[in-house]
Amino acid sequence: MAKPIAGPEIERLIQLLAKLPGLGPRSARRATLHLVKRKEQLLGPLAQAMTQALERVLVCSVCGNIDTRDPCTVCCDPARDQTLVVVVEDVSDLWALERAKALNAAYHVLGGVLSPLDGVGPDDLTIRQLVERVAGGTVREVIIAVNATVEGQTTAHYLTDQLAEFDVRITRLAHGVPVGGELDYLDEGTLSAAMRARTAF
Amino acid sequence: MAKPIAGPEIERLIQLLAKLPGLGPRSARRATLHLVKRKEQLLGPLAQAMTQALERVLVCSVCGNIDTRDPCTVCCDPARDQTLVVVVEDVSDLWALERAKALNAAYHVLGGVLSPLDGVGPDDLTIRQLVERVAGGTVREVIIAVNATVEGQTTAHYLTDQLAEFDVRITRLAHGVPVGGELDYLDEGTLSAAMRARTAF
Repeated sequence: MAKPIAGPEIERLIQLLAKLPGLGPRSARRATLHLVKRKEQLLGPLAQAMTQALERVLVCSVCGNIDTRDPCTVCCDPARDQTLVVVVEDVSDLWALERAKALNAAYHVLGGVLSPLDGVGPDDLTIRQLVERVAGGTVREVIIAVNATVEGQTTAHYLTDQLAEFDVRITRLAHGVPVGGELDYLDEGTLSAAMRARTAF
Repeated sequence: MAKPIAGPEIERLIQLLAKLPGLGPRSARRATLHLVKRKEQLLGPLAQAMTQALERVLVCSVCGNIDTRDPCTVCCDPARDQTLVVVVEDVSDLWALERAKALNAAYHVLGGVLSPLDGVGPDDLTIRQLVERVAGGTVREVIIAVNATVEGQTTAHYLTDQLAEFDVRITRLAHGVPVGGELDYLDEGTLSAAMRARTAF
């Protein structure tokens, strides 16, 4: 901009909001205006919520979930089957599975997938912690719920190797047709997998 | 969600971020994770920027712009022609015209447009303040830059009536083909307006 039209505080707010996923410079400007027009209802509460999150948010030392207590709410939940551990790449995957109410289990967040090209090796993930957790003896089944990408599947195979020596069941998510999906739009790999894993009516 | 997976501070942050334009519940969750994973680089600065904006942002008593000083940066700028006043609906329009570097002028933010169906009358906008500003005698030209909607044009006509008694030039933005626009995609109203207002090569 040739001339300043607003104070540096507003410009800074726009710049920081533009760093959020899903917001670009234009929508960050729109969001900033939306905020400063609603100081009492939105800007104030949001500033407060962020300050609180900044002070209290931490990473669970057991599973890697993000929460305001350690161990996290999921790890402390007595109603969950802590002998079932679902291994996910990221906290967002944990949240997605929880939204789906897929299973009443515990989790283990890897923090990524093995990717030699990007320089991500086993020591960059929480694989050692997972092995120690399984070695503890309370885990009955490890469900590997990584993404169905090449890196995800490589990581899944590596984990299977690492956990082979323990008396633990290792499973993975089923491949198949997404619920509500149309066959015509699916790739061949998914269709083949769904056909191979067909079930009786 | 059936079970809490994160502390109330995180849930609250998601709920508040979901109220921003351009973010829904899903992208607010993604933005929250992005923030809490980058506490030092993003969450902290953003919390601070919001707290500062909350304390300092105010509405300019002269033109209605949003800034951290009153009169605002635009109104105090000695390099601007303060005898030219561009009338806009919203602060976002002011920012848009400034980005376009359309004119080195002062502004007047109406705060909306006349809309009897929505119960917006002349007293809900800053029309009285505009008339007083023009009555002050320093304004030479009022450029009505409201949106090209029915309500915008109604408001423009109303403003013209209110300002008729003063010795001030009243103009409006030109209608025509948007720069980079293709004729085939334009509506008939725009094409007719562009044809009527054709200029010599």
